[in-house]
Parts: sequence; C-alpha cells; structure tokens
Amino acid sequence: MASRSSRRLSTEVLIDNPWHRYCLDRFEQKDGSIGEYYHIDMAGACGTIPMFEDGSTVLLRVYRYLLDETLWEFPIGGMRPGEDPLFVAQKELREEAGLVAGDWQLLGRFVPYKGVSNEVDSFYLARDLTETAQELETSEEISVHRMSLAEARRHLFEQKLVDGQSIVGLTLLDRLLGA
Amino acid sequence: MASRSSRRLSTEVLIDNPWHRYCLDRFEQKDGSIGEYYHIDMAGACGTIPMFEDGSTVLLRVYRYLLDETLWEFPIGGMRPGEDPLFVAQKELREEAGLVAGDWQLLGRFVPYKGVSNEVDSFYLARDLTETAQELETSEEISVHRMSLAEARRHLFEQKLVDGQSIVGLTLLDRLLGA
Repeated sequence: MASRSSRRLSTEVLIDNPWHRYCLDRFEQKDGSIGEYYHIDMAGACGTIPMFEDGSTVLLRVYRYLLDETLWEFPIGGMRPGEDPLFVAQKELREEAGLVAGDWQLLGRFVPYKGVSNEVDSFYLARDLTETAQELETSEEISVHRMSLAEARRHLFEQKLVDGQSIVGLTLLDRLLGA
Repeated sequence: MASRSSRRLSTEVLIDNPWHRYCLDRFEQKDGSIGEYYHIDMAGACGTIPMFEDGSTVLLRVYRYLLDETLWEFPIGGMRPGEDPLFVAQKELREEAGLVAGDWQLLGRFVPYKGVSNEVDSFYLARDLTETAQELETSEEISVHRMSLAEARRHLFEQKLVDGQSIVGLTLLDRLLGA
C-alpha cells in the first residue's frame, strides 16, 4: 500500500473499458524499494432512496452476476467521467425503478471500496414521485417493489448477502430523519 | 450487466496479482449478442470494531493512496484465498491497531462493491482487549486513536470522504446494541 511519502513513478492504464479503467501505479517507497498498486479508476456511482408521501419507499430486486445472487437494493448506477451525480441519480431512478422525482436532496457521499477503487458514491433522497415506465438494458434483470421503510430495512439487513452501498444510504437517511 | 439467463462462455484472468485477480467474463445475452463483464475476483476483507470495557473504541487514521486522503476507519484487511475470516480479522487488529482480543463476535457480512467485485466483507466486534505493538508494513501509514463510540461516530460521518465499509460495520453494531 502506498503511503503519503511514496513517490509515484508511473500510472499505466492496463485495461480501458466502458465502465472503468484498470490501472497499475508504480511508486518508490520510504526504504527505496519499488511498490506496485493495481486499482480501478472510476468516476463514481449515484444511489437514490425514493420516498412517497405516505412514507413508503421502493427497493429493487437485482440479479448480481458476480455473486450469483438476487439482492434487495436501492437504485444505483455508475457515472461516466464528467457526468453530474444528480443527473445520473435521476437517470437511474427513471430507468431502473420507473420513477421521476420533483424533489431531490443529497444525503451524503462515501467511498465504497477505498482499497481498490477511487470511486465516490453519492446518495440522494427523492420525493414528489411520479410513476413512469422502467427502461432496462437487454441484460438487466430488475423488479420494483414498493413497501414501508420498516419492511425495506428488514429486507436490506436480513438477506443472505447484505448490500453495503444500500446500507450506507439507509444510514445516511436515518441520520437525516433523526436530526 | 449479465443476467440470470445469460450463458457464460468464458472467464479469462487478465491480471493475477498478490491482492486480487482482474478478470473478463464473456456471456451470451438473451438477444443472442455477446456481453463482456470486467471484474475483480477477491476472497474478501475482514473488519473489526474493538470495544473496551468502558465502552470506548479505536479508530485508525489511514492514508488512502487512491483518494489522496487520510481517512478515519475501523481496522480492516484483505483475505487471501482459503484464509479464515476470523483469523484475518485477528491478524489485522493486531498489526494495524496493536490490539489482541479475547472475545470475538460476528456482526455481519456484506458486499461492498457488488457491481465490480465479488468481495464479501465480514465485520466483527472484539472485546476483552489487550494492547500490544503495531506491526506495519513498510508502506503503511496508520495511527491509532482511542475514543468514545460517540466521538468515533462523529469522526466517521463528518469527514470529507466517508468510509462506506466502516459505516456498515458501525450500523451492524448499532443493530446489535439496540436489540
């Protein structure tokens, strides 16, 4: 792991794909030896907690290929370099959950995977909701489920594989509601 | 993104390094087209919330190279294939925080970065603590700070870049303490 006192010698983009860049940095360590750091360079992702006037929310059931599991999650999607986080959150909420919101509030930002990726996630609270049609990509398998916040909490925590990004979003919401 | 109905055609390990494998999967999609999925194959990571008899805890200040920021975090470290999560949590707590614990309790497991990595994180509560010496690698820059849980919460949430993995650990602890 590179430290503040490491001197970066080079950054090499090993793989550039539509979703991220996989890179190798080389740096000189305090003792003079050469260190290597393989990492993902990724603009970020934007998640949303939709909240209807009656206090209910929406969770998605998303098949996650890498885990071969269907997870309960809040809507989230990746940013491309230069995109605006709020724009991406709005796009993902419409495409994945079939929802358009008139009122957006930033809940907070966090780093989900600090050791391997420079990704920064933004999570929003979306209110004043209108239902529209989902717009999924060929390969996406996502179903939309409206439920109370209490039920959403139960689903998020009691599933086999808990989704860390959704839990951070929920915790940021709890802080806002508790304040 | 591959769906449950995608048929995997191949998995290619593009880069194999001491920390993870960077892979490319190819699969046939519902419409017959070929999809690509670049991902990290990684055994997992193990985090710990240490708790002293007076209710105080320990946070680390860790310089994170990819973000060029020093973050407040709970101790966490990556697993190698085949390693036992509890063994890794104990090793990281000793090496990074200079603490040995007699009482270990699993708080929960979660996926920190479901879209790009198959990593599963385990978070533990460690009690019956004894102080020992930190054992850092050449390149690690980590300082240890004992404080109340309230102060730790403030540091974790009020920093410029919030560490998602620590927040999930804290939220799992809150559920345990609240129950």
